[in-house]
Amino acid sequence: MTYSYLSHLYCPKCGHTYDTSEQHQLCTCGSPLLVDYDLNAISSVLSPDVLTLREPSLWRYHELLPVEVEANVVSLGEGMTPLTPFPRLGKDMALEKLYMKDEGLIPTGSFKARGAAVGVSKASEVGVKELAMPTNGNAGAAWALYAARAGMKATIVMPNDALEITRNEVALSGASLYLVNGLISDAGKIVGKAVKDYNLYDASTLKEPYRIEGKKTMGLEIAEQFNWQLPDVILYPTGGGVGLIGIYKALKELKALGWVEGKMPRLVAVQSTGCAPIVKAWEEGRRESDYWNDSETLAFGINVPKALGDFLVLDAIYATDGCAIAVDDESMLHEQAKIAQMEGNFICPEGAATFTAARKLREDGWIGADETVVVLNTGAGIKYPDTVQVKPEMLEKEDTIIKKGEESKN
Amino acid sequence: MTYSYLSHLYCPKCGHTYDTSEQHQLCTCGSPLLVDYDLNAISSVLSPDVLTLREPSLWRYHELLPVEVEANVVSLGEGMTPLTPFPRLGKDMALEKLYMKDEGLIPTGSFKARGAAVGVSKASEVGVKELAMPTNGNAGAAWALYAARAGMKATIVMPNDALEITRNEVALSGASLYLVNGLISDAGKIVGKAVKDYNLYDASTLKEPYRIEGKKTMGLEIAEQFNWQLPDVILYPTGGGVGLIGIYKALKELKALGWVEGKMPRLVAVQSTGCAPIVKAWEEGRRESDYWNDSETLAFGINVPKALGDFLVLDAIYATDGCAIAVDDESMLHEQAKIAQMEGNFICPEGAATFTAARKLREDGWIGADETVVVLNTGAGIKYPDTVQVKPEMLEKEDTIIKKGEESKN
Repeated sequence: MTYSYLSHLYCPKCGHTYDTSEQHQLCTCGSPLLVDYDLNAISSVLSPDVLTLREPSLWRYHELLPVEVEANVVSLGEGMTPLTPFPRLGKDMALEKLYMKDEGLIPTGSFKARGAAVGVSKASEVGVKELAMPTNGNAGAAWALYAARAGMKATIVMPNDALEITRNEVALSGASLYLVNGLISDAGKIVGKAVKDYNLYDASTLKEPYRIEGKKTMGLEIAEQFNWQLPDVILYPTGGGVGLIGIYKALKELKALGWVEGKMPRLVAVQSTGCAPIVKAWEEGRRESDYWNDSETLAFGINVPKALGDFLVLDAIYATDGCAIAVDDESMLHEQAKIAQMEGNFICPEGAATFTAARKLREDGWIGADETVVVLNTGAGIKYPDTVQVKPEMLEKEDTIIKKGEESKN
Repeated sequence: MTYSYLSHLYCPKCGHTYDTSEQHQLCTCGSPLLVDYDLNAISSVLSPDVLTLREPSLWRYHELLPVEVEANVVSLGEGMTPLTPFPRLGKDMALEKLYMKDEGLIPTGSFKARGAAVGVSKASEVGVKELAMPTNGNAGAAWALYAARAGMKATIVMPNDALEITRNEVALSGASLYLVNGLISDAGKIVGKAVKDYNLYDASTLKEPYRIEGKKTMGLEIAEQFNWQLPDVILYPTGGGVGLIGIYKALKELKALGWVEGKMPRLVAVQSTGCAPIVKAWEEGRRESDYWNDSETLAFGINVPKALGDFLVLDAIYATDGCAIAVDDESMLHEQAKIAQMEGNFICPEGAATFTAARKLREDGWIGADETVVVLNTGAGIKYPDTVQVKPEMLEKEDTIIKKGEESKN
């Protein structure tokens, strides 16, 4: 039985193609490479009914993933995260059908695990022994831990301000960890030099072709979880944008397979008002973004001043009649608390930003009351303890709780 | 279609039975109550094959759970956590078949979500409007967030030393949070008074009957994930012991249903040398434990000096030819790092303690080289950042990485 129907790599800018048996980074023209499959062959051997019987991980879609030998799969059980209905928050937003895809329930606590699982598995298959990457934290943690599981060395460089808990994850994995007094773009320059100096595999966002394939599985899962009826709108917090590119790629592949029909969901890229290069480009009707100077937001995962794949994100938005929207930090913190209180979920600020965007788009009428809306929460709130202010009451052992406004029965 | 085959509550000490339509806490004799089902009826309507087709959450076992009306289910998609093979660590321990059941991949990042999901759902079904509980952190976080989702009020009291991140979870949920300058037993006394003063539902460990039913699903999942062939040994970090009691109950119910056969897995209660009341009782061949004075361990979840269900834990150990074993903090931290480096998973110290115990029992010959061994990791390491020491190298923007012992290619 064929495990993967991987065909070849191609460049979405110049059309050049590459063989998949060797290590590849960017196209010679400088563009990221994308993966193609033999979809005709897949449609003749696989049907949605068969999928239902498989294990609840992203590897259930192995025919549509790039790893060719099952033994090369490096897995911690990632994928098939819950698609949770949010009825109360929906009502609060005047939205009848609001859902959250919860990427907090995945190894390392963020959606970055998907890219790392598939990326590291494929890197291992093509013989990579050591990788390097710059990160805002979560991606570095995921790649370092999956690399450890694969027996691969990793060098991770992150901004000094990056999520503190991700330092612990990287350090515990045994990877080489460096902090830089700067942004992820500065970390990227340092990694770029190290890659050349020591001949390392560059696992930077979109500089290897397989991370997208892991992220793509979010789109496959959403389609399967809705029983192959696509939702109307999917909103995604957008830093490097790989998740959005991946979801769009997934939906196109499912269409080609004939597993889904009709109009594509409108894809929405959500950014912070403190770092909104994609939003600016979209508002100006452009196909590429400019570097965003002095970017700042507490939603650290979307603090990316210029994404290598910006043109692919913008393509996906234009092609699906989607949009791009920015929200401020204060609104996202307010939404984060509301979600915990109404729906019982402690989500990350990037996810909260995305719910804020859904609320604004509903208010503006861009989203209709009866539309089915999926918001991606890209990580667990527990990785971002500083987003919550806590002032609990202190008691001594012999103290009694006094509830204000309630009468004691004794 | 009948959603639950709940029959009644019974006391494992005095045999008294109770109706399930009303709120219950302990038996009048002071013992925790257990839940019984009409297993004959279940075996005539349900088969393992049908389960395979259901959604990957613990609610796939709804016939064996106490919630009678599906609409009362309060869910964040909990359950069907990965059962991950640990081949390298296994080799390092001279164990051919070592697996980790990963309870880090569940809402709120710990196995407490299972008890909270089922406990809050059932509390909601019997009309509870407000609950209170003492906690070492993770249980309080889970119950507070699930209570919020159910629209229920919660009062949570935790030791000042409890896991800091769980404060944020409780606070964000909108629950009333109190810290006490003492242990969980002191928090318990304060909650006991508040329960009486304000007529609250007492959600303390085993003081309501349904948390066990949620924990039980770990046993159901392990059996299903091994295709109804039971493993030889299951090791569990034991504080209040509800997980172990639940797994034992699950296995007995599966035997009664005829879905599993043969010898029960040997159940192992793992504690810390700083708090080992169950281990002491087991070593002395006793059926109840004594209060452990001046308890201390960094595995805060197993810092429980005297468990209300100690007799049920000891019963489960004796009935399955299991054992109880204590490990020290230093060994568990060493094991935690080893697991991250060999298997790519950042687990909690309680889980690491349990792997340490497996290693010791293998060395002693109590576990054989070819036995199938399951270790429960009860939570995500990211909730315990302080267990990892990080000393990363600091770089300036223009710096270059120098790899010691490796020659630069440029």
